[in-house]
Amino acid sequence: MKAVVLKHSAEPNGINYFDDAEIAIPELKEAHDLLVEVKGISVNPVDTKTSKKNFEEDYRVLGWDAAGVVKKIGKAVTDFNVGDEVFYAGDYTRSGSNSQYQLIDERLVAKKPELLSMAESAAIPLTALTAWEALFDRLELTEKDRGKKILIINGAGGVGSAAIQLAKHAGLEVITTASRIETLEWVNKMGADRVINHRQSLSEELRKIGVKELPYILCLYNPNAYWEEMAKIIQPQGRICSIVDADRPVDLSLLKNKSVTFSWEFMFTRSMYQTEDMGRQGEILTEIAKMYDQEILNKTMTKHMHPINAENIEDAHKIVGSSKMIGKLVLTGW
Amino acid sequence: MKAVVLKHSAEPNGINYFDDAEIAIPELKEAHDLLVEVKGISVNPVDTKTSKKNFEEDYRVLGWDAAGVVKKIGKAVTDFNVGDEVFYAGDYTRSGSNSQYQLIDERLVAKKPELLSMAESAAIPLTALTAWEALFDRLELTEKDRGKKILIINGAGGVGSAAIQLAKHAGLEVITTASRIETLEWVNKMGADRVINHRQSLSEELRKIGVKELPYILCLYNPNAYWEEMAKIIQPQGRICSIVDADRPVDLSLLKNKSVTFSWEFMFTRSMYQTEDMGRQGEILTEIAKMYDQEILNKTMTKHMHPINAENIEDAHKIVGSSKMIGKLVLTGW
Repeated sequence: MKAVVLKHSAEPNGINYFDDAEIAIPELKEAHDLLVEVKGISVNPVDTKTSKKNFEEDYRVLGWDAAGVVKKIGKAVTDFNVGDEVFYAGDYTRSGSNSQYQLIDERLVAKKPELLSMAESAAIPLTALTAWEALFDRLELTEKDRGKKILIINGAGGVGSAAIQLAKHAGLEVITTASRIETLEWVNKMGADRVINHRQSLSEELRKIGVKELPYILCLYNPNAYWEEMAKIIQPQGRICSIVDADRPVDLSLLKNKSVTFSWEFMFTRSMYQTEDMGRQGEILTEIAKMYDQEILNKTMTKHMHPINAENIEDAHKIVGSSKMIGKLVLTGW
Repeated sequence: MKAVVLKHSAEPNGINYFDDAEIAIPELKEAHDLLVEVKGISVNPVDTKTSKKNFEEDYRVLGWDAAGVVKKIGKAVTDFNVGDEVFYAGDYTRSGSNSQYQLIDERLVAKKPELLSMAESAAIPLTALTAWEALFDRLELTEKDRGKKILIINGAGGVGSAAIQLAKHAGLEVITTASRIETLEWVNKMGADRVINHRQSLSEELRKIGVKELPYILCLYNPNAYWEEMAKIIQPQGRICSIVDADRPVDLSLLKNKSVTFSWEFMFTRSMYQTEDMGRQGEILTEIAKMYDQEILNKTMTKHMHPINAENIEDAHKIVGSSKMIGKLVLTGW
C-alpha cells in the first residue's frame, strides 16, 4: 500500500523529512481492531509537533484524523461491518492515518456523517473530540450552564471552530478571541457572540464589552501567554481548561484565592492509557455525526489538497505550522 | 469587651506580637449580620501565617473558628434568633473571632451540634468546611465514587482529620499518609483504610500496598513537595485538590498527557468574593452538625487551653505553627 512516511535525515542533527513509500497492508491485530481503507486525512498541530521529534524506528506514519471505509473487522468487533463509512482521530501510540490502510480500535470510531463527503468528514474528528471533551468532560458544562459566559481563547483554529459551535449549541454565551480580519469573520461564521482581540490585554478587552469575570475559560494557545490575565478574569470557583502545553512552569498560586479549577484536555489520553471509558470517543463522534446530519454544526474544512503524498503533506505541515491556519486542512486520494 | 489583638513591634522590621486589649463591642452593620458572643475559638495554620504578615491598621483581631451565642440579629436575618448557639469559621476580610463579641454574616453560620460542648464545636468549622468543599465541591465526589480510592496527603492535621472521616462516610477507600507513631494512631482512629509514609516516595509506598494509580488526591501540604509523585500516581482523567499554597512555580505540563484536573480549595473564597452561593457554607455546617449529633463523625479537639488571652494565643500559635499538630487546638473563656 502507499504511505507517506516520516524519515530521519542522513545528516547528524538533520531534520526529519517526509517520503512516499510502499509498505505492507497491516494484518488485524487486536480483537477490537478495524482495518480501514483511508480516503481522507487532515493535518493537525499534533502532526507538526510530532514531525520534529526524534524517534527510534526507521520511519513513522503520522496522521490523526481520517475518514474511510471498513475493510476487515476483528473478532470482538460488534458495532461495525465491512463497507461501513467511518471517521476517527485515532491513537497516538499506533501507526497513523497517512497510509492507504490503517488499524484502529473500534471504540474510537463512529460512522461518518451521511451528509458530508469523505474530505469534509476527515476534517472533523480530532478537533471535535478535543472541543467536546474540553467543554463537557473537563469544564463539565451541563444544562445548568445555559446562559453563562465562556471565553474561548484563539477561536479560529480547528479546535476553536468546533468549540465555539458546541458551546453555543449548549446554550452558553461565547466570547472568543481573534486578531485579524479573516479570523474575525471566521469566528463570527462559527457563531461567536462577541469577539475580543488576544493581542491586547484580555481583562481590558473584556472590560470594554462590560464583562469583568467569567466562570469558564477554554485556552487554545500556550497558557503561559495568558496565565496572569486568566487569573484576573476567571470568576471565583471558575474553571479553566487548556489543550496546549505550557512551555515553562506556571505560578499556580495565582488561582488559589478564587479556588479555581484547572484541567488539561489531551485528546489522546483515553486511547494512550486504554481507559475504561475509551468507548466514549466513539460515542462522542456518533453524536457529532448526528449533529452534522441535522445541520446543527458548520463544516470546518477550509483547504483541500489532492493527492495524499509526501510533497502535499510537507506543504500541509508548513501551512498548519504557521499558526495562521483558519479552520481545517484536508488531503484526499492516493 | 476583651480581645486578643495582633500589634506591630515598635522596632523596625520587628515581629508582630499579641496583646490583651479592651475594645468596643461592634455595632450591627450589614443586614445579614449576627452579633455573636464568642465562647470558644480554635487556632489554624491560617492564623499563624497571617500573624507574620504586615498590615496597615493599628491592630488586627485574628481567629477563624468560633462557637458562641447569638446576641443581636440584623434586619435581613431570618434563620437565627437571639440565644441560638452557633458555630462558624468566618470571613477573612473581617475582624476575627479572638474577641468577646464578633459580627458574622448569617449565611456562613449554623447552629452548633447539640451533643458537643462549645469547646468541641469551636474545633470544627474551618477544617470541616475546607475538607467538605475540597471533597464535594472541588473533587466533586458523588455516589458514583463509592468504592473508589482517594489519597489524602498529610491526614493527621485538622483538615486531614475531617477529610478522612467525610471521605469514608462517602464510601471511598481512604489511603492517607503519616510518618510518626502518634499520627499513625490518630489517622487510624479517624478511619483511614491504609496509611503510607510521606517521607518515602509515594509511588513506591503505594506500590507496596498494591496500588499503582488512584483517581483522587487531596494534598494537604505544600504541593511542590509532592508534584512529581502526584503526577505519577494520579490516574488518567484523575483529579488533584490542594489547600496549601505552592511556594514556587510548578511544571503543570506533567499532568497533561493524563488530562488531569487540578483544583484549589480555599475556604475563604465564598466569603471573600461574596459569591452567590456563599450560603452553602451555612448549609454545609448544618450538615456537619447533624453528622456530629448522629455520632457519625469523631471529635477532633486534642488540646484545650483556658482562658482566651494573649499569652495562651501566643503558645497556641507556637504549637500550631510547629507542623506537628495532631487534630485541633481550642481555647475557651475570657
